[in-house]
Amino acid sequence: MIRLDVSLAERSYPILIGDGLLEAPLPALQALASGRQVAIVSNPAIFALYGASTRRCLGADGAAGPSQVLDILLPDGEAHKDWDSLNLIFDALLAARFDRHCLLLALGGGVIGDMTGFAAAVYQRGVEFVQIPTTLLAQVDSSVGGKTAINHPLGKNMIGAFHQPRLVLADVATLRTLPPRELSAGLAEMLKHGAIADPAYFDRLLTDLAALKACEPRAMMAAVERSCQIKAQVVAQDERESGLRAILNFGHTFGHAIEAGLGYGQWLHGEAVGAGMVMAADLSQRLGLITDQDVARIRSANQAAGLPVAGPAWPPERYLELMSGDKKSEQGTPKFVLLSPFGKAVVRKVPDEPLRQTLQACVQA
Amino acid sequence: MIRLDVSLAERSYPILIGDGLLEAPLPALQALASGRQVAIVSNPAIFALYGASTRRCLGADGAAGPSQVLDILLPDGEAHKDWDSLNLIFDALLAARFDRHCLLLALGGGVIGDMTGFAAAVYQRGVEFVQIPTTLLAQVDSSVGGKTAINHPLGKNMIGAFHQPRLVLADVATLRTLPPRELSAGLAEMLKHGAIADPAYFDRLLTDLAALKACEPRAMMAAVERSCQIKAQVVAQDERESGLRAILNFGHTFGHAIEAGLGYGQWLHGEAVGAGMVMAADLSQRLGLITDQDVARIRSANQAAGLPVAGPAWPPERYLELMSGDKKSEQGTPKFVLLSPFGKAVVRKVPDEPLRQTLQACVQA
Repeated sequence: MIRLDVSLAERSYPILIGDGLLEAPLPALQALASGRQVAIVSNPAIFALYGASTRRCLGADGAAGPSQVLDILLPDGEAHKDWDSLNLIFDALLAARFDRHCLLLALGGGVIGDMTGFAAAVYQRGVEFVQIPTTLLAQVDSSVGGKTAINHPLGKNMIGAFHQPRLVLADVATLRTLPPRELSAGLAEMLKHGAIADPAYFDRLLTDLAALKACEPRAMMAAVERSCQIKAQVVAQDERESGLRAILNFGHTFGHAIEAGLGYGQWLHGEAVGAGMVMAADLSQRLGLITDQDVARIRSANQAAGLPVAGPAWPPERYLELMSGDKKSEQGTPKFVLLSPFGKAVVRKVPDEPLRQTLQACVQA
Repeated sequence: MIRLDVSLAERSYPILIGDGLLEAPLPALQALASGRQVAIVSNPAIFALYGASTRRCLGADGAAGPSQVLDILLPDGEAHKDWDSLNLIFDALLAARFDRHCLLLALGGGVIGDMTGFAAAVYQRGVEFVQIPTTLLAQVDSSVGGKTAINHPLGKNMIGAFHQPRLVLADVATLRTLPPRELSAGLAEMLKHGAIADPAYFDRLLTDLAALKACEPRAMMAAVERSCQIKAQVVAQDERESGLRAILNFGHTFGHAIEAGLGYGQWLHGEAVGAGMVMAADLSQRLGLITDQDVARIRSANQAAGLPVAGPAWPPERYLELMSGDKKSEQGTPKFVLLSPFGKAVVRKVPDEPLRQTLQACVQA
């Protein structure tokens, strides 16, 4: 088992990474849950696979276990990351008279993590929660940094909070039940971490790609650790995204536009970010910040990882319209995360002309 | 103009108390709003009275004013302190493409303040806001301390956040348009401040009662200042209510039960707290913590202020059921804020018998 600490003063927390973590009672989780009201929030598919082992891991049947365990199942998918689903959590907690000393457990992917985290942020003005991410994307991305949110019909993740978990359990064994498309989506965020912070890690991901696609535990645990480390270092310097943290959004301004334009859930978030990284790299090259070879490196890594390398075939105006509502915008003008050079990221406003060229060059034929 | 600082490290903010503050451009507000997207959140009745002066106070027409001013009007009353009304704020902000550098202004009573504050806490994961409380209750209570929330069908203020304003403007001139019942409701919280922290202030409120009911500026400004001071001192020691801050809930465990049982909006919050203080004082006396005379002192102050001195005529079981969901509960057992002695408050679990006696003695015949 690997232990990694996210350093955020009194909100610091450990990430435990292992292969089969959920298979036995886990002291770190039991210590947190002992004597408390605990709610496991999940969706039916994930709960069928890991609900029983999560209860075991909690020590739910032991004498020192939680005082009460409540299962709350939400409908699956990004389309349900909304107030109605969030309210199912509040309804269940209030009906069971959970007080503000209770503990929520998020068992699932990014949608479950975001919703459970946001519910924990605002239930009775804030309760504690634990993340048990069961997708690769959630293990390397949403489990680090405390961003929680729901979607609004007019924008993704528009309603949310910064709320740090008390503990994250990343069990790579849960990745073996993941569809290949979701594994690729996770790889997109990992490649992103390499591209913005660690070129050697970027290359190692490509070397290990076959082992990672096969969920070989040693390779996977090492990669999850390095990605979490990179993200944790950035977040520790800028918890509430007033500056540096924005570099983690490399590929996301374009990616969010793709997701919003297609309707959430058509492309996976990681797929949209994959195409978005190629677009952001292309834009970086047009601004003279990286080379043609760097762009090719990102494009071919995406291809090898099974990710799209171009956005939907929309005119530039459609992309520009979709991007103007981005959370990084200031009064309607989006900012872009660019590479300068490969392995380092900067945040910039961008002239109209190269942006339009990228939007013409990087869409599907 | 009186300036009072609420000390909460990097979340500290000033409260400006004056008579006619909104009548002219106010440098402290203009400095905050200059160049930003600003939304004034209010209800139709309050906005009709103070909307134009708030815009003036903001310097909305000047060159150094906000880049954009948006008016958002919500339906009036506690019954609308819910997700649907909150979502009207998000809809308006997103439709107008307000970004996360925007500023929200809460112009109104506690309901507007709670909803605007909560909207600010979660819009794009948190934006800044200013409180312009126009009721006495809001000036002395909800404008200090950063508690924001909406109601849930299963409980009052169950969904919310701690989110501090950047500035509070308490203009006692706005109290002159307040119905007498609402003025009395504000007096209840002020008497509470005296009872838990400053007996001399409690007595001064009674001496000045005629001047306060007539909204005489000098008496009102001094009383608003002292109440805000007392609350600010408590909040500064315990921002997130992990201990001491709970003493501010004197009268509230009973009061919330009354509000919940009657349906929100039947009694004003301050009226329910008024009756709740008499009940909490009676309970304190039964536990030997204060004298009969202290209970009489609170009862007669309530009467003089025009507040109820007993709860609705429900059997004790109904009160106990309503109180078991209180946010101060631990696994269903409510805690009570008691006086010990008069002028000082403590938080305690309470034996069943004296509690039942209080519930029998302190209800309307």
